[in-house]
Amino acid sequence: MSSQPIFLAIIGLGGVGKAFLTQYEHLRQRLSSQTPSTDLALILARRSKTQVLSERYGGLDASKILQQLDESKKPFLPFDAILEFLENAPGKVVLVDNTSDLELAKQYPTILGKGISIVTPNKKGFSDDIKLWDNIFSAASRGNSHVFHESTVGAGLPVISTLTELIETGDEVTKIEGVFSGTMSFLFNSFQPVGGEGGKFSAEVKKAKDLGYTEPDPRDDLNGLDVARKLTILARIAGLKVESPTSFPVQSLIPKALESCKSGDEFMEKLPEHDDEMEKLKSEASKAGKVLRFVGSIDVGSKSVKVGLEQFDTSHPIAALKGSDNIISFYTKRYGANPLIVQGAGAGGEVTAMGVTGDLIKVIRLLK
Amino acid sequence: MSSQPIFLAIIGLGGVGKAFLTQYEHLRQRLSSQTPSTDLALILARRSKTQVLSERYGGLDASKILQQLDESKKPFLPFDAILEFLENAPGKVVLVDNTSDLELAKQYPTILGKGISIVTPNKKGFSDDIKLWDNIFSAASRGNSHVFHESTVGAGLPVISTLTELIETGDEVTKIEGVFSGTMSFLFNSFQPVGGEGGKFSAEVKKAKDLGYTEPDPRDDLNGLDVARKLTILARIAGLKVESPTSFPVQSLIPKALESCKSGDEFMEKLPEHDDEMEKLKSEASKAGKVLRFVGSIDVGSKSVKVGLEQFDTSHPIAALKGSDNIISFYTKRYGANPLIVQGAGAGGEVTAMGVTGDLIKVIRLLK
Repeated sequence: MSSQPIFLAIIGLGGVGKAFLTQYEHLRQRLSSQTPSTDLALILARRSKTQVLSERYGGLDASKILQQLDESKKPFLPFDAILEFLENAPGKVVLVDNTSDLELAKQYPTILGKGISIVTPNKKGFSDDIKLWDNIFSAASRGNSHVFHESTVGAGLPVISTLTELIETGDEVTKIEGVFSGTMSFLFNSFQPVGGEGGKFSAEVKKAKDLGYTEPDPRDDLNGLDVARKLTILARIAGLKVESPTSFPVQSLIPKALESCKSGDEFMEKLPEHDDEMEKLKSEASKAGKVLRFVGSIDVGSKSVKVGLEQFDTSHPIAALKGSDNIISFYTKRYGANPLIVQGAGAGGEVTAMGVTGDLIKVIRLLK
Repeated sequence: MSSQPIFLAIIGLGGVGKAFLTQYEHLRQRLSSQTPSTDLALILARRSKTQVLSERYGGLDASKILQQLDESKKPFLPFDAILEFLENAPGKVVLVDNTSDLELAKQYPTILGKGISIVTPNKKGFSDDIKLWDNIFSAASRGNSHVFHESTVGAGLPVISTLTELIETGDEVTKIEGVFSGTMSFLFNSFQPVGGEGGKFSAEVKKAKDLGYTEPDPRDDLNGLDVARKLTILARIAGLKVESPTSFPVQSLIPKALESCKSGDEFMEKLPEHDDEMEKLKSEASKAGKVLRFVGSIDVGSKSVKVGLEQFDTSHPIAALKGSDNIISFYTKRYGANPLIVQGAGAGGEVTAMGVTGDLIKVIRLLK
C-alpha cells in the first residue's frame, strides 16, 4: 500500500538546517523502503535571500538543494506567495522552520490554521508574548494540524516530550531545575571546575568564543535571554501563564558599565576590566566549598521562574557536568525526592536536527 | 466533533494495574472535555480468576472496577472468548496488559493481527525467544495495529522512546550502559555507598526485602534475569539479533551452594553463610578506590551484551546513584564523548503506570 506523499518545506539552511537535510534524506529512504511505504516529497527549500521550489510538487533532490540555492537566479518570493504555494500542495504539508526568526514564528498561527503542520527548533514563537503562544496552539487545533518543538529546549534531549508526558499522565510537577545553555555550561565548567582552578572570566569567554561555543556576539549568551526563553517554554507547558521571557528575574552577566558597548568586539576588549566582579563570586563559592553555575529554575507551586548564578555543592550533579552538557531535573509528586533527570549535549547542529527529525517522524505518523 | 469511542481492555490489576486505573480515569476525563473531544470506553477488566465486561460495549466505571471484580460471580472466561469479545467491539480497541505473564504475551501476535493495539509494561513478550519478537512486530504491521512497551525498561523513564528516536533519526548507537534494576540499585547503594561502610550483603538483601524493594522471593532479582530481559529488549531495538535473555553472560548473585534451595525463605536463612564471598569483592573494589555496582551493558559494535557486577570510580555517575534509581547512558556518534543520560526511579506502581499511560496517549493519537 503506497499512499499520497507527505510534502515537506524547509526554511533555514544554516548549521541545523544542513544537518537536518542529511537526516531527512536518511528518513525519506527508510520510509520509502518500508512495507507499507510512506513517501516524502521535499517541495521547498528557502533561506535568507533565495529559495528553490518544486513547481509541480514533485520531490526535490535533497543532495542537490544547497547547490541549487547557491545557483538560483529566481526572484526572492514574499512569504505570502510561499504560503499560497504550500496551501495548494495536493496533500498534507509539514513546514520545517530551522531559523531563529521571530517574524516567521509570528506567521505560525496563520500557517497552522491552514492545516499545515510545523516542526521547529526556533524558540522565538513559543517564548515571546503569551498571546502568540495561545494563538499558535488554538490555530493548530482549529486547523487540525500539528506543531512540535522538542529542540527548542535541550536540542535533541527528550525534555519537552518528557515534561508533556508527566503532565498528560497526571503527575504533579513541583520544580524544574537545570543548566539549559551549552555555552553557559562550558563557560562555568571551565571558569570554576570541581577540583580545579579555572581561568579569569574574560579569558574563559574568549576561549568559548574561539571554540565556537558562543554566539558570534557573546553578549547574546551572556545576557541570559536564551535561557530565559527556554524557561518560558517549560513553565508554560507546566501550566504557568508566563507573559514573556522578560517578565521574571533574569541575571545578565554583562557588566553594567559594558551595557552600552557598540559592538561585540568592543565588549570583548573591555571585559577583562571587570574580571574582579566574577572573581569575587567565584572565591565566595569556593570558600563555602561550592562552585558557581548558571542555572534556570521553575517552582511551579509558587509560580516563580528565575535565571542566574547559583552556588552548588561539588557533589551535586549540576556541579559535575562536563563540556557543554545540559542537565534538566524534573521534581514531581510521583518521582518523589529523587528527580527524573535528562542529561547530555544540548547544543550543536546534529543533535538539534535530531530533535527536529524526531518531531517530523511523530508528525508523519499522525498524518498518515 | 465527537467521534466513535476508543475501547479499552485492561488485564492485570496488581500494583501497576491499580495505579494505571487511576491515571486512565484522569486521562479519560481530560480527553472527553477537550475540543474536539475523544471518548474512551473501558469494556473489560480482568485479573487472575475473574473479569468484568461491558456486554453492550458501554464504558465501565473505572472507580467501581475493583469492587466489581471482588463481587463478580460470573465464570472465568477462556482467553479465546475474551479475544472474540474484543474483536467484535464496534471500533478501535487497545489492550492494556499490566501482567508479567509470558502466556498472555505469546498471544500478542494473534491479538495484534486482529487489529487490536497493545500497550504494556510486561517484559516477557519482548525479551523471550526472538521468534516471538519478530512475530509481534510483523503481526502489528499486518494488522495495522500498534504496540508500545516503554515501561518494560526503566518504568516511566524515557528509555525506549529515546533509543528508538536515536536510531530512527539515523544516529549510530555505539554503547548502552547502566543500572537497570531498582532492586539492584538500592541493594548496592546500601551495600557499598560512596564514602560509607554499608552492611553485610545478606543483611542488605533482607532490608531491601523488608522495605518491599525486592520480589516476594529475592532470588527473582538476584539471578540477574530481570536485567537480562531489559538488556535483550534494548539490544534488539539497537539492531542486535539477541536470541534470548540467556544467550549472553549474566552473572547471578545466588551463591552456587544455594541454587538448590527449595524456597525463598530457606534461601534467606542460608544467605548469611555466604557473606564472605561478597565481602571479598567489596573490599577489592574498595582497595582500588572504587565501588561495586550491578550493571548491564550493550556494545553494539562487537555485538556483546553482558550483565553483572563491575567496579566504578566513586566519581562516576553510576557510583553516585541514590535510592533505587536507574541510570541509562546512551553513547552515540552524535553525542560523542559525553553520553545522553536518563536517570530516575525505574520501578514502582505509579511510575510504571505512567509509562503505560504515556504509551496509551500515543496510541490514541494514532488511532484517532
